[in-house]
Amino acid sequence: MSETTHAGNGISPEQAAVEQELVDTVVASFDKAEDPRLKQVMQALTRHLHDFLREVRLTEEEWNAAIEFLTAAGHITDDKRQEFVLLSDVLGASMQTIAINNQAYKGATEATVFGPFFLEDAPEIPIGGDIAGGASGQPCWVEGTITDTSGHPVPGARIEVWEADEDGFYDVQYGDNRIAGRAHLFADDEGRYAFWGLTPTPYPIPHDGPVGKMLASVGRSPVRASHLHFMVTAEGLRSLVTHIFVEGDPQIEIGDSVFGVKDSLIKKFETQPAGTSTPDGRGGNNQSWARTRFDIVLAPVLI
Amino acid sequence: MSETTHAGNGISPEQAAVEQELVDTVVASFDKAEDPRLKQVMQALTRHLHDFLREVRLTEEEWNAAIEFLTAAGHITDDKRQEFVLLSDVLGASMQTIAINNQAYKGATEATVFGPFFLEDAPEIPIGGDIAGGASGQPCWVEGTITDTSGHPVPGARIEVWEADEDGFYDVQYGDNRIAGRAHLFADDEGRYAFWGLTPTPYPIPHDGPVGKMLASVGRSPVRASHLHFMVTAEGLRSLVTHIFVEGDPQIEIGDSVFGVKDSLIKKFETQPAGTSTPDGRGGNNQSWARTRFDIVLAPVLI
Repeated sequence: MSETTHAGNGISPEQAAVEQELVDTVVASFDKAEDPRLKQVMQALTRHLHDFLREVRLTEEEWNAAIEFLTAAGHITDDKRQEFVLLSDVLGASMQTIAINNQAYKGATEATVFGPFFLEDAPEIPIGGDIAGGASGQPCWVEGTITDTSGHPVPGARIEVWEADEDGFYDVQYGDNRIAGRAHLFADDEGRYAFWGLTPTPYPIPHDGPVGKMLASVGRSPVRASHLHFMVTAEGLRSLVTHIFVEGDPQIEIGDSVFGVKDSLIKKFETQPAGTSTPDGRGGNNQSWARTRFDIVLAPVLI
Repeated sequence: MSETTHAGNGISPEQAAVEQELVDTVVASFDKAEDPRLKQVMQALTRHLHDFLREVRLTEEEWNAAIEFLTAAGHITDDKRQEFVLLSDVLGASMQTIAINNQAYKGATEATVFGPFFLEDAPEIPIGGDIAGGASGQPCWVEGTITDTSGHPVPGARIEVWEADEDGFYDVQYGDNRIAGRAHLFADDEGRYAFWGLTPTPYPIPHDGPVGKMLASVGRSPVRASHLHFMVTAEGLRSLVTHIFVEGDPQIEIGDSVFGVKDSLIKKFETQPAGTSTPDGRGGNNQSWARTRFDIVLAPVLI
């Protein structure tokens, strides 16, 4: 395959042979791996890495820049900041891994990226409860049903939701141990759920490190399209990690920085003027609020 | 190309289309890059990275393992230890970059990996001087000529040499600021050089980090074939970074851990019994010594 790829790029057959022989030697160095899957992955990684180097004719200066980039990414990474996940995200590798492992199932809700901001043990709220916990933003009534692909409700499905506040920060980014803008609840006997969240707003991924510098150097926005995270689990059905996006958010057109948007996940968020009465009768106060609907269909476990 | 690559692996056309659309979107996200070379490199990186993910159908667990690997590599890296260079080395990426940028030139000496142990400002020695500086090992007389590809000597060519001691460590690895096993000298009016070095011995690359763990898990040796480093520079000629290897070193067959060996760089090292008189008349003492010859041919600057 490599020979084909590099044909016509002015490389002499002798040079191409030298390069290909090296690829073959490195691939063969993994022949003794006892784990066949590890062997497959490392050999494929080797082939594709060398195909890349050979196609672009990477210079020694560029190789040095790559080493410096990875080093800087390693040094900014700690237990709160994960630059390698950001790198995978902005190259679409996270989303591609999601796509590979959560293949579209006819009628089922689509998955998207997990992101780095999920927490185990978010508080439980009743149906109709509020996830804000003090996070600032426009209140947003979110409701829907959980069903399987035959249309049967999934009573008791566990629904985890989490989101940034209107300043674009998740609770964990404040570093003061607050828990806000996240909760879990369970669908009722007819598979219905509802909660008060916040109308999602756009925010940039952390962009003060090497990944942010890279995005700036290629003219890309670090901003994520506005979204609200869901993780839905129920026995006997495939777990779903997804978001909903806000119809009309200009960032959808500009481009979500981590490529998470899917058309089926873009939802209408209807803004209600201050004073309008709310679905749960909590009553409009002096603030406007929004409402949206997200009916979730879980795929079977085995496809 | 991706469609072809993935044909016949049981992926539905719909799934393949979803995956390809993502690749196209990520590639297009770099369209606005002002620097055409950066755009080319990032777009090619994206295509090859996604080709890899799609070919092996990377699992989410494997993706997590990859993030953990890179994180550990970042955290062990400091100004003395460079795990990303080691990673590039053991995947053959360093050697491929050398191959791409130092294309074989008819009759010229071949290049190989630079390695992480070169130091600027190594001491100057006269022709016939000793580079050991206290480093332990069997003395080795190294001599040869520097010529261009027309066979003309290159008087005054600068020759940097560096190597590990018989325990497999370079001076910089001792962390006590010693300078040993390295020097530079200049070819004489007829392009000749000679010095006392140490007979090279095999040593492992640093293998107490994630790269070492990876090598162990695939059954690969971390050991480098015995070698002596050279960097030769002369005005108007292409700089040469290379090693010489020791004929008969079993590690050449087992496999050099960084793929640096080239047949043309394997040299005969002839051991002389203790007491044999030496070429410079310094006289054999109670120690055996070795001798080797390395005639170096520098390519023109432009090819």
